[in-house]
Amino acid sequence: MTLSIIRHIPELRERIAEFRRSRPDSSVGFVPTMGYLHQGHASLIRRSAEENGLTVVSAFVNPTQFGPNEDFDKYPRDEARDKSLASEAGAHILFMPEVSEMYPDPIRTTVAVTGLTDRLCGASRPGHFEGVATVVTKLFNIVTPDRAYFGLKDAQQVAVIARFTRDLNIPVDIVPCPTVREADGLALSSRNVYLSPEERRQALILSRTLGQVPDWIEEGMTEAELSVRLRGKIRSQPLADIDYADVLTYPELEFPRAGMRLRNSDRPLLIALAVRFGNTRLIDNVLLFPQEVRA
Amino acid sequence: MTLSIIRHIPELRERIAEFRRSRPDSSVGFVPTMGYLHQGHASLIRRSAEENGLTVVSAFVNPTQFGPNEDFDKYPRDEARDKSLASEAGAHILFMPEVSEMYPDPIRTTVAVTGLTDRLCGASRPGHFEGVATVVTKLFNIVTPDRAYFGLKDAQQVAVIARFTRDLNIPVDIVPCPTVREADGLALSSRNVYLSPEERRQALILSRTLGQVPDWIEEGMTEAELSVRLRGKIRSQPLADIDYADVLTYPELEFPRAGMRLRNSDRPLLIALAVRFGNTRLIDNVLLFPQEVRA
Repeated sequence: MTLSIIRHIPELRERIAEFRRSRPDSSVGFVPTMGYLHQGHASLIRRSAEENGLTVVSAFVNPTQFGPNEDFDKYPRDEARDKSLASEAGAHILFMPEVSEMYPDPIRTTVAVTGLTDRLCGASRPGHFEGVATVVTKLFNIVTPDRAYFGLKDAQQVAVIARFTRDLNIPVDIVPCPTVREADGLALSSRNVYLSPEERRQALILSRTLGQVPDWIEEGMTEAELSVRLRGKIRSQPLADIDYADVLTYPELEFPRAGMRLRNSDRPLLIALAVRFGNTRLIDNVLLFPQEVRA
Repeated sequence: MTLSIIRHIPELRERIAEFRRSRPDSSVGFVPTMGYLHQGHASLIRRSAEENGLTVVSAFVNPTQFGPNEDFDKYPRDEARDKSLASEAGAHILFMPEVSEMYPDPIRTTVAVTGLTDRLCGASRPGHFEGVATVVTKLFNIVTPDRAYFGLKDAQQVAVIARFTRDLNIPVDIVPCPTVREADGLALSSRNVYLSPEERRQALILSRTLGQVPDWIEEGMTEAELSVRLRGKIRSQPLADIDYADVLTYPELEFPRAGMRLRNSDRPLLIALAVRFGNTRLIDNVLLFPQEVRA
């Protein structure tokens, strides 16, 4: 099956309905992206292709999740590359709508999640998660997938999507997938293309710092102590400008009990970083489950 | 086919999936209600039963659309009556979930529609339409109907539901249906049961006033003149306490151009009333299309 490029919603719906009629016992997997695909996306597509009879990838740079001073206009785009990567990874349909296809009228409806969205990237990027929740709801309603695959590099996004999906009874399984990294540890991101060679070199501090977190937790650190250690370590790189470096429970995104040694946590812990290098804001994180915390 | 009473979401989903497997060319119609069914609901159910192979009715008094001083606790409930009326009208499934089935955790997600919801009942009942939009989104995701039927007595509700359904690409046709009235003109409402005999008698002013609106428009009234006439007429009943009596375009719910004779409107017009009689707030309206306005 070769990759079909689809740009219009009715055609996409028709193709998916046709698949369901012809393969009623199969399933549809969905990988929503903003395009400029990399090997992180490829891993999601491969997993969907293994688990479903039809894999739909969307590539849509959604304007409503960008703030007025963010990089919507210059967000990298490369359709030819997206087609070849999606095809090689096993996608059947690449949905690439224009903005006017997704927003034919000014949208008046918002899907909002309270609590989870007022911290981390939600604090730095007001309105971002409303934009994400609304467009992902739209895409779920258009594709009506059985499963949707998201990378854990955006761990807060995964928590928000899992939450509204459950709250609104959307009949889709949210499948979180591990972050894919370069050989030297840098988490893959479409925004890495913005980095100068020196910024890219210094950005390695994120994955190196996160790699030490399990040891620091084993030493008996509290949330406050770990936050100080994270910040100190990241500041060793002169170009690093910290947006946040936080330790939260997952997926609730609440602060762990003050003074508790994190190795005693009975909740999964998310250690999440957002750091600017020059004009480029990078995020990375590690998610630790209680058994790992206590290892 | 006899009426099945279903109280749990997985069982409902399974029954609907079974219907779709066995009748792939048929369709599912849905009539969401708050129960205490009357002949207005029956007309929606009958229409759904004519147009679809399976008709699902939900009866759920949704707490999140009631304000703190509203009638959630005393909203009338009568399961036996709901079962017999739904069955007689041709429903196949009556979904009657407990609050804990619809809200197993405190809900963190809201579906909100801006603009349309800050006037009429939205102004009098803050949060009401967010509660409605959120629960109807949940019900649409649970039932996944092809068509959903709503009474135009709640004209603003129909406009809000049609709007978020379109904005979020929910794959359901919203079918607005005419208001059903008693022989003397009173619009059917579950809340009519609250009225004393004298309140009920005076409440007839609503339908009588609305019945004269086409004549007043034909005389050449503007929006401002018609609003004054409506209020004067309703105030002829001493128990009537006006919440609103407004003239708006439909379904945008915007004020018509000031000074324009309404008979020249190129937009449909909604003349909407909300009036208290004692403790009971009643709503009623008439929707006029340009050809009728110019009759």
